[in-house]
Amino acid sequence: MRPHLQQMALSLLPDPAAASRPELRAFYDMLRDYPERGGKGLRSELLLLSARAHGLAEGSPGWERALWLAAALELFQNWVLIHDDIVDDSDERRGAPALHKLHGVSLALNTGDALHAYMWAAVQRAGLEGGFREFLSMIHRTAEGQHLDVSWVEHGEWHLTPDDYLDMVRLKTGFYTIVTPLRLGALAAGQPPHPDFEPAGLALGAAFQIRDDVLNLTGDPAKYGKEIGGDLLEGKRTLVVLHWLQHAHETRRHIFLDQMRQSRTDKDPAIISDLLGWLLESDSIEYAQQFAGAEAARGLTLLRGALVQAPDQSAASELLALMDTLTRREA
Amino acid sequence: MRPHLQQMALSLLPDPAAASRPELRAFYDMLRDYPERGGKGLRSELLLLSARAHGLAEGSPGWERALWLAAALELFQNWVLIHDDIVDDSDERRGAPALHKLHGVSLALNTGDALHAYMWAAVQRAGLEGGFREFLSMIHRTAEGQHLDVSWVEHGEWHLTPDDYLDMVRLKTGFYTIVTPLRLGALAAGQPPHPDFEPAGLALGAAFQIRDDVLNLTGDPAKYGKEIGGDLLEGKRTLVVLHWLQHAHETRRHIFLDQMRQSRTDKDPAIISDLLGWLLESDSIEYAQQFAGAEAARGLTLLRGALVQAPDQSAASELLALMDTLTRREA
Repeated sequence: MRPHLQQMALSLLPDPAAASRPELRAFYDMLRDYPERGGKGLRSELLLLSARAHGLAEGSPGWERALWLAAALELFQNWVLIHDDIVDDSDERRGAPALHKLHGVSLALNTGDALHAYMWAAVQRAGLEGGFREFLSMIHRTAEGQHLDVSWVEHGEWHLTPDDYLDMVRLKTGFYTIVTPLRLGALAAGQPPHPDFEPAGLALGAAFQIRDDVLNLTGDPAKYGKEIGGDLLEGKRTLVVLHWLQHAHETRRHIFLDQMRQSRTDKDPAIISDLLGWLLESDSIEYAQQFAGAEAARGLTLLRGALVQAPDQSAASELLALMDTLTRREA
Repeated sequence: MRPHLQQMALSLLPDPAAASRPELRAFYDMLRDYPERGGKGLRSELLLLSARAHGLAEGSPGWERALWLAAALELFQNWVLIHDDIVDDSDERRGAPALHKLHGVSLALNTGDALHAYMWAAVQRAGLEGGFREFLSMIHRTAEGQHLDVSWVEHGEWHLTPDDYLDMVRLKTGFYTIVTPLRLGALAAGQPPHPDFEPAGLALGAAFQIRDDVLNLTGDPAKYGKEIGGDLLEGKRTLVVLHWLQHAHETRRHIFLDQMRQSRTDKDPAIISDLLGWLLESDSIEYAQQFAGAEAARGLTLLRGALVQAPDQSAASELLALMDTLTRREA
């Protein structure tokens, strides 16, 4: 993430040195923890590229507004990650222990709630007509996607098709990763967002998430920042797994589903390691990569069309290149 | 709560009948669950009384604005209760099972997050200059109070004085229950909030919470809506318990603290029942009642002074009477 953007986000949070009690100092430190870990800043970068493509010059009077919206997106990402890490009982985030592993679920949950409110402070600071509604809509879609994802795990639901997966991933990832940043960039530049930003962003978001699911199985632990195979431990429904289940031998399918019925802590590491091996040697990884490639191509074509009239074609090219890299990413 | 207000809050939430998938229908039902359970609507009532006392007539053009702020306060209460019930692992809420007991922690956590965003939709709908900042400040104070309360439990902290308890309860309860409703009512009527609303509201909020802590030990289960003795199971630091610990026999103190070191599920129901008996037969209940009475009297005097110039003295009297009843409540 751009250091300046990170500083803006952090500037909204209370200063630990000014806390009235040691416990509150600890709380203020918790609020800053995930934002200080940084992250790629992908969504804020996309927003700023979209603003530039729509004619808002870096450093122009309206640029500050775009920066606050970008800071708000990063704060959104941070509070959602704190809560997601609790729900998934993830061990790590950005190469360090997850917040609830450091401080317990209750204090981490409360920190996520407070950070959610600080996100609105950033939205308010931007003062953009329509920005408020964009954030509301983004949160609602993301929460719907999260509900699908988690309810399948909670209810042991495995009768799912690739279409079900796509419904989930569009809602859970597509809006907040691509659609909303594209739209906010346009709005910050005073332009109406192109209607194709939605189908383009949902396709690109799906491609991005499918690659992420694959990296969770095949990635380099040093680069990936999360535990490899974590999705298996969490019983996540991914395109790889859903495809594999449709084609696996009955015996292996049975062993797989049996493990998935166990809670994370009751899962057998040796069997999980076998499952990982079966997935890696199957053609389901290749199927998912192909699927992601097709979604990425479709999304890029739509996005190219939507940006063809954009005032700053150099920024539009940068944006398309970022999207291209993103959906091919290896870490 | 006023049925009209409840309808306004519910009108912001998605319609389960319009859900695109059965899982999302279940999610929309979860969003409506706590708001549909109702509740006393104390904070919204206080806001509306404050608005009337400040000269905003019921049904006047500005009244709608006050109603949306009141609906937002009720939505705030609802998302916070969903998350608090998770943190405290409460069994019941408003006479029915807590949301996470019905659907699991993960789905309930996500529902609380989404309801948090719908709260902001209500604030936005009110369109009151300054309303946004009031809600931000209220959430921040409440989260600080929650951090104190929960961090003491998590860290096994019992070296606490009545002043520590008051710090916590003012932050956790005082702002959102009294200070913010009073201030929002004034702002909705176009008046600057009186500076004494803060000290008055914090004293009244403390009185209210201390009574609630006592009711948690002595209340009528049918009227109280939560489990009697639940605070003991959750290891809550209350004024009653802190006072009792200062005066208890060494042996009983030791037994008490030993139980408090156990997790909720590991606590021994028979011993907890003994502890409850010791608290009830001690003079700590009386001490807390006296303390609450003194805070209530101080708060009422300050509030009476702050409202002496209010345009609608009849509404101001109603407001003072509500505060008086509230801090004497028995259910």
